[in-house]
Amino acid sequence: MDVKVLYNISYGMYIVSSNKADAFNAQVANTVFQITNDPVTIAVSINKLNFTHEFMKSSLQFGVSILSEETPLNFIGNFGFKSGRDISKFKDINFKILNSGCPVVLDNAISYLEAKVINSLDCGTHTLFLGKVSDSAVLRPGKVMTYEYYHQIKQGVTPKTAPTFIKEEISTTIKSEVKMGKYKCSVCGYIYDPQKGDPDGGIAPGTPFEKIPDNWVCPVCGADKTQFIPL
Amino acid sequence: MDVKVLYNISYGMYIVSSNKADAFNAQVANTVFQITNDPVTIAVSINKLNFTHEFMKSSLQFGVSILSEETPLNFIGNFGFKSGRDISKFKDINFKILNSGCPVVLDNAISYLEAKVINSLDCGTHTLFLGKVSDSAVLRPGKVMTYEYYHQIKQGVTPKTAPTFIKEEISTTIKSEVKMGKYKCSVCGYIYDPQKGDPDGGIAPGTPFEKIPDNWVCPVCGADKTQFIPL
Repeated sequence: MDVKVLYNISYGMYIVSSNKADAFNAQVANTVFQITNDPVTIAVSINKLNFTHEFMKSSLQFGVSILSEETPLNFIGNFGFKSGRDISKFKDINFKILNSGCPVVLDNAISYLEAKVINSLDCGTHTLFLGKVSDSAVLRPGKVMTYEYYHQIKQGVTPKTAPTFIKEEISTTIKSEVKMGKYKCSVCGYIYDPQKGDPDGGIAPGTPFEKIPDNWVCPVCGADKTQFIPL
Repeated sequence: MDVKVLYNISYGMYIVSSNKADAFNAQVANTVFQITNDPVTIAVSINKLNFTHEFMKSSLQFGVSILSEETPLNFIGNFGFKSGRDISKFKDINFKILNSGCPVVLDNAISYLEAKVINSLDCGTHTLFLGKVSDSAVLRPGKVMTYEYYHQIKQGVTPKTAPTFIKEEISTTIKSEVKMGKYKCSVCGYIYDPQKGDPDGGIAPGTPFEKIPDNWVCPVCGADKTQFIPL
């Protein structure tokens, strides 16, 4: 089996949100897809360890915000590399609470869907939730962010709890990217490439790691500069 | 609910194949997703009316060929707009029979996967099959065809049995594309645009519909020229 084939599968980038009574949580997901058109149903795969999984099991509803190509890495890092058990992910975030009580994230979203869980499939480490779409709206025009764009253009990384995390492949990717001057975040695996800089974080392309201000943090997970190791 | 949001979900383009004893069948699918990484599982949504559905229920295995961006429309039409109940879809097609007896299509594929069905979810008109990946190989380098590329660049259309077929949207799209000289295939909905021609079918951009040779057929479904209606 050649695990590289798994990288040929196409996905988008989404924030999946849910509530447990009046508490909200949300996470990044890439496995959102339409299953039927009559009625309109969508499926999403969520790791059982994730806090959002607990919320979806409880409220049997979820929101899906479809991210634009311009979404900054630290926004994805906030929802993808941190747990709602430790922080409130909705701090400083624009979101909306639908009539059902389900939150949907508005920042960086070009549209959103809300769905009611009508069935689910136990897939071992993950649950595949089937939801009937109950609400949806286009927020603004824009190009959606694909998983490929996130990885190749934004140089994003994948949390260990994602369906598409591949341990061997991450190692290979890191090895192939080893060049003078790159630094890797020891917390999430993000690689700082001086040639690309971190424009979202105010670091211009061409800035060596050593010249980055000490208050700069990893654009994905928020770890501070001391957590980076040279490659 | 705004059905246009459903178009913001990202997919790839795949040929899903299966066997029933020594008989083979295959169809186009766009909902193929990785669900877990340990073990590696993928899910695919298949319409219950499709012949491939019957084969997958019987053999409990399926192949997935990941299509390249260069895949011609008539190749997708052969697998997506025709039924294996009426024709042998594998005629003049390069494919491979794996040890399990499962066929995988090689033409226009940049890689393939084989999976054993380990669970399934009844989703009304469709079944969501969960498969454990048993084999996979990269065939050649290349860019994968996304569903967006198929629709926007290749001007492909969606069969009525697909999870992502939206009746209202197809009508809207057709209306918005009504300009002098376009013709629509009354069988599958494909629109011939004289400005783009049909390069895969030997018709240069700029060729009016009236100048197309009479033996030309719809690049998607193979209907002949008399099946086209002016828009």
